[in-house]
Amino acid sequence: MAGELESLELCLERYIPPQDLAEVKRILYGGETRKLSLPVAALSSAQERDFELQGYGFDAAPEQLRRPRIVRVGLVQNKIPLPTDTAVAVQVAALHRRIEEIVEVAAMCGVNIICFQEAWTMPFAFCTREKLPWTEFAESAEDGLTTKFCQELAKKYDMVVVSPILERDEIHGGTLWNTAVVISNSGAILGKSRKNHIPRVGDFNESTYYMEGNMGHPVFQTQFGTIAVNICFGRHHPLNWLMYSLNGAEIIFNPSATIGTLSESLWPIEARNAAIANHCFTCPINRVGTEYYKNAFTSGDGGKAHHDLGHFYGSSYVAAPDGSRTPGLSRTRDGLLVVEMDLNLCRQVSDKWNFKMTGRFEMYADKLAEAVQPCFTPNIIRE
Amino acid sequence: MAGELESLELCLERYIPPQDLAEVKRILYGGETRKLSLPVAALSSAQERDFELQGYGFDAAPEQLRRPRIVRVGLVQNKIPLPTDTAVAVQVAALHRRIEEIVEVAAMCGVNIICFQEAWTMPFAFCTREKLPWTEFAESAEDGLTTKFCQELAKKYDMVVVSPILERDEIHGGTLWNTAVVISNSGAILGKSRKNHIPRVGDFNESTYYMEGNMGHPVFQTQFGTIAVNICFGRHHPLNWLMYSLNGAEIIFNPSATIGTLSESLWPIEARNAAIANHCFTCPINRVGTEYYKNAFTSGDGGKAHHDLGHFYGSSYVAAPDGSRTPGLSRTRDGLLVVEMDLNLCRQVSDKWNFKMTGRFEMYADKLAEAVQPCFTPNIIRE
Repeated sequence: MAGELESLELCLERYIPPQDLAEVKRILYGGETRKLSLPVAALSSAQERDFELQGYGFDAAPEQLRRPRIVRVGLVQNKIPLPTDTAVAVQVAALHRRIEEIVEVAAMCGVNIICFQEAWTMPFAFCTREKLPWTEFAESAEDGLTTKFCQELAKKYDMVVVSPILERDEIHGGTLWNTAVVISNSGAILGKSRKNHIPRVGDFNESTYYMEGNMGHPVFQTQFGTIAVNICFGRHHPLNWLMYSLNGAEIIFNPSATIGTLSESLWPIEARNAAIANHCFTCPINRVGTEYYKNAFTSGDGGKAHHDLGHFYGSSYVAAPDGSRTPGLSRTRDGLLVVEMDLNLCRQVSDKWNFKMTGRFEMYADKLAEAVQPCFTPNIIRE
Repeated sequence: MAGELESLELCLERYIPPQDLAEVKRILYGGETRKLSLPVAALSSAQERDFELQGYGFDAAPEQLRRPRIVRVGLVQNKIPLPTDTAVAVQVAALHRRIEEIVEVAAMCGVNIICFQEAWTMPFAFCTREKLPWTEFAESAEDGLTTKFCQELAKKYDMVVVSPILERDEIHGGTLWNTAVVISNSGAILGKSRKNHIPRVGDFNESTYYMEGNMGHPVFQTQFGTIAVNICFGRHHPLNWLMYSLNGAEIIFNPSATIGTLSESLWPIEARNAAIANHCFTCPINRVGTEYYKNAFTSGDGGKAHHDLGHFYGSSYVAAPDGSRTPGLSRTRDGLLVVEMDLNLCRQVSDKWNFKMTGRFEMYADKLAEAVQPCFTPNIIRE
């Protein structure tokens, strides 16, 4: 992508001398994250297949009664490989192939749980407000082609797969949802989780297509750890993260699709804040590149009709409960981020900072219940 | 402070060339914040009095029906001027004098609302767990010497003063509280706000001295804007920020005392996340320097007894509802940060992002009420 900075972290590393860089990283990121040594074959496969491969690790202190609970997660960010006016089935097949070659490398890196980007089987076409052909990308979460494809991957690589798709819910009137399907490493469908908060901002006209999720905040106990999926716009809602955490999630994925001019200064803040506030790992994922549409559309900003909604800036990363984080993947390239984490860190940080113990949730349950009443009187003190 | 980096922002500016620096600042801070032109007399007074003076401004779009609502806030960070074993009354008097000379400069800069750091009239002695002499720093919020001193300042300079102190509550058994007194620019006491969340982490043994605040989330409608005070550890609790915002706060101050090894990688994240999530301005303030105690104490980390709790790293800043922020004040020097803001930006950003409209607070009120029940069953899905 001409003119786009490839990565904030590479830029800092290029210019800042080592002694100051260490201090800058400590203040910005909570220190230098341990680099993972990844297999040479995986690194060369990634290079051949033209995607970035990075690996980092988070450690925890040894305990007497619990063994380390080491898990490797994989975050995948990618461009759409074909133009948006290619036939729907052809686009989907091309995305399946692209993901297949990335997942193969993830398996070589020992990834246990992998998550793809939001609505990964399609262009993020909700900017157009057109229904056809975009709604044709919707699939059944239970027996759609993409779910079957992910079940095969899960079995083949003994890997939990989180597959965020546009869901067609046939047994409820054929409605659409923005849904993540969670597939066990056995290949069985563990369940699904729906996007709880739907944007009405800029080109993100998603409420034209689907409503707020009606499944609450399920968490999924996998062989490798307890996970949840907070889809895209839910990233902006601290209570959404909190409820996944109160249900027991130790890793919360945040598959997203968001562009530079809208949200890039929020991106490093919100998921990381959620990891801190909830003593868990968070994994925000964003797609990459610019997607062009044949029919022009406006953006609700008074500007002229145009054919794209801007640059999806990638920058997927993992934040740890201790406030540290990995560098982000590229702003411009497809990528796989492999992160090893000892899940024991969650409880260790919780016992240190005690945000749940000191959270006074009972008071807030009462206060929120008051605040939503039509007759609510804010607590304003006047002279 | 030998060995301490003076400021993250100065370090970035020193090394990164201009074209990349602009992009780094956009990604890290949401862009370059407008610099305020401050009076020469104020700048030279600050230099004479040995404190940093910085000024920035946040703008909003013009509206048809509302005039711009411009306010200037002042954030004060400072070291304790005298050793901690000086007589209590002498330490307090020295702090009054130091603040007086900073507030005078704030007045020259047109500051309308000023906020001092947490427990500003004393060393942050709660690491010691000793009661005397530290509890002698406690004062009545209503008619203590410090409140009277602040009332004089408020009247003299036509300035709202937020004065966080250790409060002695005589009418309730002489209990202590960590309290901010809010004084109108008329000199009248508008009210007070108590620290809602009390830390039990590292050297922050504050629950030895005072309990969780019992005043809820009051906001204060001043002539210049509607403000609230989220004291220190409440910064880590997204629900605390939310309730101040639901009560109508457009500016939330966060007077704090926190040290580098504990929280510095959290500092740029939490208050900024709160500004984003709640469509308001947030103003985190941290004291500066290292405070030494005659009697050694331990830190609950298995280490040897020692005489200080580490370096308070200053770095006070203001975050705006659009996700942008000012650079931080110095990590090592006393300072005054003057920030001009058009409060119309709050509603403009709220109308753009709609986090309150899309917040589903009714659902969360119910879910939180369930989650705090002893019989709560988390929503965990197993294979």
